[in-house]
Amino acid sequence: MTRGSGVTRVVVVGADAAGMSAAHQALRTARRTGRELAVTVLDRGTHTSYSACGIPYWMAGDVESGDDLVARTAGEHRAAGIDLRMETEVVAADLAARTVTTGSGEVVEYDELVVATGSPAVVPDWALRPDGTTYDGVGAVKTLDDGAAWLERFDSAGDGAHVVVVGAGYVGVEVAESALRRGFGVTVLTRRRGMSMLEDEMAERVNAGLCEAGAEVVLGAEVTGLETDGDRVTGVHWDGGSREADLVVVAIGVRPATAFLDGSGLERADNGALRPDPHGRVADHVWAAGDCCEVRRRIDDQWVFRPLGTYATKHGRALGDTLAGGSLTFDGMVDTSITRFALGEVHLEIARTGLSHRDAEAAGFDPVALVTEGTTASGYMPEAAPIALWVMADRTTRRLLGVQVVGGAGAGKRIDAAAAVLWAGGTVDDLAWMDLAYAPPFATAWEVLQVAARRVAERL
Amino acid sequence: MTRGSGVTRVVVVGADAAGMSAAHQALRTARRTGRELAVTVLDRGTHTSYSACGIPYWMAGDVESGDDLVARTAGEHRAAGIDLRMETEVVAADLAARTVTTGSGEVVEYDELVVATGSPAVVPDWALRPDGTTYDGVGAVKTLDDGAAWLERFDSAGDGAHVVVVGAGYVGVEVAESALRRGFGVTVLTRRRGMSMLEDEMAERVNAGLCEAGAEVVLGAEVTGLETDGDRVTGVHWDGGSREADLVVVAIGVRPATAFLDGSGLERADNGALRPDPHGRVADHVWAAGDCCEVRRRIDDQWVFRPLGTYATKHGRALGDTLAGGSLTFDGMVDTSITRFALGEVHLEIARTGLSHRDAEAAGFDPVALVTEGTTASGYMPEAAPIALWVMADRTTRRLLGVQVVGGAGAGKRIDAAAAVLWAGGTVDDLAWMDLAYAPPFATAWEVLQVAARRVAERL
Repeated sequence: MTRGSGVTRVVVVGADAAGMSAAHQALRTARRTGRELAVTVLDRGTHTSYSACGIPYWMAGDVESGDDLVARTAGEHRAAGIDLRMETEVVAADLAARTVTTGSGEVVEYDELVVATGSPAVVPDWALRPDGTTYDGVGAVKTLDDGAAWLERFDSAGDGAHVVVVGAGYVGVEVAESALRRGFGVTVLTRRRGMSMLEDEMAERVNAGLCEAGAEVVLGAEVTGLETDGDRVTGVHWDGGSREADLVVVAIGVRPATAFLDGSGLERADNGALRPDPHGRVADHVWAAGDCCEVRRRIDDQWVFRPLGTYATKHGRALGDTLAGGSLTFDGMVDTSITRFALGEVHLEIARTGLSHRDAEAAGFDPVALVTEGTTASGYMPEAAPIALWVMADRTTRRLLGVQVVGGAGAGKRIDAAAAVLWAGGTVDDLAWMDLAYAPPFATAWEVLQVAARRVAERL
Repeated sequence: MTRGSGVTRVVVVGADAAGMSAAHQALRTARRTGRELAVTVLDRGTHTSYSACGIPYWMAGDVESGDDLVARTAGEHRAAGIDLRMETEVVAADLAARTVTTGSGEVVEYDELVVATGSPAVVPDWALRPDGTTYDGVGAVKTLDDGAAWLERFDSAGDGAHVVVVGAGYVGVEVAESALRRGFGVTVLTRRRGMSMLEDEMAERVNAGLCEAGAEVVLGAEVTGLETDGDRVTGVHWDGGSREADLVVVAIGVRPATAFLDGSGLERADNGALRPDPHGRVADHVWAAGDCCEVRRRIDDQWVFRPLGTYATKHGRALGDTLAGGSLTFDGMVDTSITRFALGEVHLEIARTGLSHRDAEAAGFDPVALVTEGTTASGYMPEAAPIALWVMADRTTRRLLGVQVVGGAGAGKRIDAAAAVLWAGGTVDDLAWMDLAYAPPFATAWEVLQVAARRVAERL
C-alpha cells in the first residue's frame, strides 16, 4: 500500500452508514478540491451499507428480501473507486506507527484512519452456550445475518409459537410488532418500565398499546436465565417469574466495537464510545463517526450515546468532506427519534426530541412540563386520531427543552417541528405561535402541538 | 348599553374564529388582570365559530352534519358571559362618536371596537340572476348555509351529473375531490395554471393528480357566462370553450367585509383588508383580526392577504389578551398552508411555506431553487410514497426562503419543519443538517426534506 507522494492514504474501518458516507464524500469533495485520496475500507462482515432499522420490518414480512435493505452493494462502492475489503477484521491499531492489523495478521498503513466500526448488539451470558454461540431460538436483531436467522426461525416456528422479547426499547417494540403480525404470542420483558427514552406518562401509553394489541408486558423483569432442552431454548426465567418460550429476542442494547483501540490512549466513554469533534476528528490522523461514537447534544452540551443512522450518515459526510479539504461539520443533535407500534386497530407513533425531565434538571434548568391530549386532525374528520404530547420548557428563559409524542397516524413526524425549534434554541412561545400548517385532514385549527406548547407557556 | 364607570364596553363585529377568540381571551385575561369588560358580539349570520375549511369534507360525506363543524354554539358563547347577538348586521361605524349602527337602525356604543367580519366569497356577475341571487345549481363554498345548499344539490343531482368548479385554489381542489368522491363528473376551470400558491413545476403535479383521478382540467379559462334554462344553470362558457354543467361551484376567492368602514379613514389594502399591528390594533380604540385583515409575512416584511383560520385564531387571541391588559402578540407568519387531493389511488398532500420565487426576487433576495424527488418512507417499506420538494434559499446569506411539497401520505405536514426554520430566520444548512426524526416507516435515513435542502445548499 505504498503510494506516490501527494496521495493521502485513508483507511476506513467499517463499511456501513458512517464509513461509506465518509468514503464517498471524501472522494466527492476531492474532485472539487483536487486532493488525491486513496480510500481503503476494511469490514469484518459480508454486507455493506444496510439498514439495520429495516430488519424488524423484514421480519414482519413488509420487506421482500434482505437485499432490499442494502442501500449500496460492495460492487457499487468499488465502482466508485473505493478499495473495499470485506471479511477483513481490524484487531489492533498502532497510532504512532499509523498502522492497523487485520485478523489475518496483515499490517495496513494509513495517513488518516477513520473508525466507523459501529455497535454490535449486547448478548448477555445467559443467552450463550458454553461455545459462545446463542442457544437455538435465541438471537439479537442487528446485522443482516441476524435478520436472515430470524426470518428462518419465524418461518419454521409452528402455530402458537411464543416469542419472548427481552428489552422494550425501540428495537424491542418493533420486533414485538413483527412477531405479533406474524401471528405469534408475544411477551415483552423489560428491566424497568420500558421505553426509557420517554417520560413515565408517555411510556405508559406505549405499554397500554402493546397490551391492547395482545402482547403480555412484564415490567421490572431482569432476566436470570433460560430454560433449555439441549441446544434449544424452551423458557425464560426472570426475577419473580418465568415463561415458556419457543423464541427469545435479545434487544437490550448495543456497545461500540472499539476494543481494537484498547491501549491507544484515545479518550473514550465508559462503554468504549469515541467522541469526535464536528469534523469527525478524534486525535491527530484519527477520525470517527457513527454508532461507535457518542454525539453532542446541543441543548445541554452533553455527550450521549445514540447509535442512530441519521447521525452516522451526517457525521460521516462531514468527516469525509473534511478529509478532502472541505469544511462541512456535524453540529450535534437535539436527541430526536421515532418509532411505530402498529397492529390491527392499534396504531401508535412514538417520537421524542430534546431532554428528559431528569436531563433538564441535571443541566440546571427549571423545567415545567405538561401532557396535553388532542387529535391529529380536526375532530369531525375520519382521519382524527388521539394524540398525547408532553412538552417541557425552562421557567426562567422560556426555552423549549423537550417534546414527546404518542398518537395515531400523523402523530410521529410532528416531532420534527419541535426538533427545529430546539435546533434554533427557540422558546416554548416560538413553538406555540409559529406558523404550522392547518387543514382539516391534517390538524386542528390550533395545531395540537401548539396547544400543548401554549398550555406550558401559560404555566411559566 | 350604558355601564358603570370602570367597565370597558368591547363591541366585536363578527362571531367566527377571530372575533370569538378575541372575546373569550379578553374575558379569560380579564379574570387575571382584574379588568372589567362587557363584551358584546354582533354577527349578521346565524352560525358562530364554524369551520369553513370543513365544508368540502361535509360535501364529500366525511362529516355527518353541519353541526359537527360548529366548534362552539351561540349558547356556549353566552354561557361564557358574552352578549352575543346573531342576525345583527353592522352597516356603519362612527369612529369619532364610537358607535356602530346595525341594519335595523340601532346605534351601539363602544369603548373598544373589534372588527372581525371575515371575508365572504366573491360571486361574479355571471353567476347572478337579475335579482342578485345565484342561478339554481350555482353557489360558493364559504358559509354553513352554502354547505347545506351544496349538500342538497349533491343529494338531488342525478347519476352522471356534471360539476364545473371555477377556480383551482385550495377550495377549488378540495371541492373537486368532494364532487369526484360523490361520483360526479368534474371539470375544473382556472384562469391561469391553477394552484397559484405553488411554483409552476409543483402546480403541474397537482393538475396531473386531478386528471389522473378523472377530473378534466382547463387551464387559462376565464369564464364569460353561464348557459341557463330559466333559473337553472345548464352550461358554462369561457374564453375558448364551453361545457354543459348541472352544477357550478364558484371558488374564485374571497374579499374582506369592511364596506361598513368606508369613509372611516382607516388604512386599508386595495381589497379593503385592514392591517392590524401584532396586538390587533388598527387605530385608537379600533382593533381587527382574521379574514378581514392582511397579515404580516416575516420573511420579507410584506402585508399579504391570507384569510386562514390559524391566523384568525392566533391574532384574535393576542387581540383579546391585549384588550384586557395582557401582552400577547401575533408576530406574523411565514405563509404556510396545506391541503389534500385524495381519491382512490390518488393521494396528494400539497403544502407550502415561505416566499415564491417571484416574491423572493421582489424582496431583493438572490434566490436559488431546486426540485428534489424522493420517498416519504424508506424505499423498501410499503408506506413509501413519492414526494417532490421545491426548496429555495438566498445565495448571499444562505437563508432559507421557501419550501413547497407535493406527495403521498405523510408528505404534507413535513412542511412544518421548514416553517419552523423560516420562523427562526434559519439557513438552508439548518434545514439540511438539523435533527429530524428517522425510522423506516416515516422517512429515509437522510430525510427527503433534508436531501432537498442539501442539494440547494450545494448550489449556493
